[in-house]
Amino acid sequence: MAKRIDYAIGIDIGGTNTKFGIVDHRGDILYRGVIATNKNDTIEPYLDELQQALDPAIQEVGGIKMIRGIGIGAPNGNFYTGTIEYAPNLPWKGIIPLAKMVQEKFGVPAALTNDANAAAVGEMMYGSAKGMKDFIMITLGTGVGSGIVANGQLILGHDGFAGELGHTIIVPGGRLHWSTGHKGSLEAYASATGVVMTAIEFIEQRKEESLLRAYAKDEIDSRIVFDCAMKGDAIAKDVYSFTGKVLGEALANFVMFSSPEAIILFGGLIKAGDLIMKPTREHMEKNLLPIFQNKVKLIFSELREADAAILGASALVWEMKG
Amino acid sequence: MAKRIDYAIGIDIGGTNTKFGIVDHRGDILYRGVIATNKNDTIEPYLDELQQALDPAIQEVGGIKMIRGIGIGAPNGNFYTGTIEYAPNLPWKGIIPLAKMVQEKFGVPAALTNDANAAAVGEMMYGSAKGMKDFIMITLGTGVGSGIVANGQLILGHDGFAGELGHTIIVPGGRLHWSTGHKGSLEAYASATGVVMTAIEFIEQRKEESLLRAYAKDEIDSRIVFDCAMKGDAIAKDVYSFTGKVLGEALANFVMFSSPEAIILFGGLIKAGDLIMKPTREHMEKNLLPIFQNKVKLIFSELREADAAILGASALVWEMKG
Repeated sequence: MAKRIDYAIGIDIGGTNTKFGIVDHRGDILYRGVIATNKNDTIEPYLDELQQALDPAIQEVGGIKMIRGIGIGAPNGNFYTGTIEYAPNLPWKGIIPLAKMVQEKFGVPAALTNDANAAAVGEMMYGSAKGMKDFIMITLGTGVGSGIVANGQLILGHDGFAGELGHTIIVPGGRLHWSTGHKGSLEAYASATGVVMTAIEFIEQRKEESLLRAYAKDEIDSRIVFDCAMKGDAIAKDVYSFTGKVLGEALANFVMFSSPEAIILFGGLIKAGDLIMKPTREHMEKNLLPIFQNKVKLIFSELREADAAILGASALVWEMKG
Repeated sequence: MAKRIDYAIGIDIGGTNTKFGIVDHRGDILYRGVIATNKNDTIEPYLDELQQALDPAIQEVGGIKMIRGIGIGAPNGNFYTGTIEYAPNLPWKGIIPLAKMVQEKFGVPAALTNDANAAAVGEMMYGSAKGMKDFIMITLGTGVGSGIVANGQLILGHDGFAGELGHTIIVPGGRLHWSTGHKGSLEAYASATGVVMTAIEFIEQRKEESLLRAYAKDEIDSRIVFDCAMKGDAIAKDVYSFTGKVLGEALANFVMFSSPEAIILFGGLIKAGDLIMKPTREHMEKNLLPIFQNKVKLIFSELREADAAILGASALVWEMKG
């Protein structure tokens, strides 16, 4: 019998959008698509939409019989149980048995992991972390996710929930998180949402002129902050300096935990380039013990946005038994 | 040829004292001893003293020919290089090639690792962490050390320096560390030194009566703070509440990193029992995401003080090649 040519579906569920791809054995993404994650408060209509969106691509590769399985990365996704549990940035509350639901919906095996863990695996197999045994992947998107690799293995933790670095407290008593109720977590600052909150705080607290003042407060998004910063706006640039300071302080703590070869940054915020990278590196180095200074590579992901997570999620499929 | 009966020497170098033991294959410590670590500013007289102190015990087991090797745990000890590099709490500055020096001094193979990593290995082999694959060991002594085990392996990091959790910043802008120059690190609060500093701050800031006021400030040590707390002194008890708060906040961050089954506390400070444990647990739980709450075992080491590190260090010997 000839070697069977089949495909994996990789799905990356983010707070705003869900991206998916049909992936071959070489890690090439043949078809890509996206649907909104947060349009429905319940999971069933979301799964209907996902199936409708995936169906044409599945037909293109020869139908569902050509799909070996579906791998999913999602916030608070648990590899051991296949469930999403109490994800603060997703519309579905409580415990969602997503792997089982997807498996029943599509009729092929499904596996689930944390979205940032998926991205870390994608980065290790196809991206900037190729050949590395110790690195941390941080996604700076709607929220802040993380995947930690040590001794060449993902750190999943005792229960599969390791790597929630976005929820570590970096500014004790600081900004209230919109969903967890904790104060001063990394995610409340170093996410797209956090950047917008910082921008609004700055224009409220400061008197000087700013391009940001041309917008209503509820109109400002991270794109607008970025555009204003690129036009040289002082307040918008300070938003990135401040965000980078908090992120750098957080990264220093992470380095003293697992002493990685590299920290790979990923997600919407890295579009700001040096605006965010410079203060991040400065404050990371400043807070490290000398033995850690000027050693850790701080780099941006080389993979197209979402590709790391899609590829990492699809890798779950190739590792499935049977 | 009959099975050779030989022994390992395990050495635990702390900021104040160096403890050692001669250990058999079953993990029984046959002879124990201790010398001061901080009596000499240079390493050579320290090694002379160590040899003099060890020599009688070595003779008892049949001479140096019966010693397979020497395993050492030391702050900033690096397993990969065998060196102690810039240890803030040790009297010897710069890079000390300790494994090589000990090997030459005693004429048997020597290996070095971080003191807290050694304790974690000892705890995994003979103590509270037996059978665990994911746990964090925190030593609360003169300083704060840590050893992290994930997927059943020590996390050493890219360069061998992983697990410096005592130097993570928990109170940004907080208390100046006496040696690193950083502000607000865990060690500046949750160590014997930190407890004394907190006690002095409290009696300076507050007006009420306290048993602590019977002592000159430079006379107060962690033993006195403990004794006063046990006598019901309000300020002394508050010192532990405050220390536990900072420690609990730190532990919450660590849990969200590696999601351990247990955190094992070890070292002088744990003698305070519930005085430190209760606030630590309370503030740890308070700062965790719901998915992590009421899951992590927070326990004291079951091993005699220093035994974990001596046993863990001796385990390096059994793993030596050849």
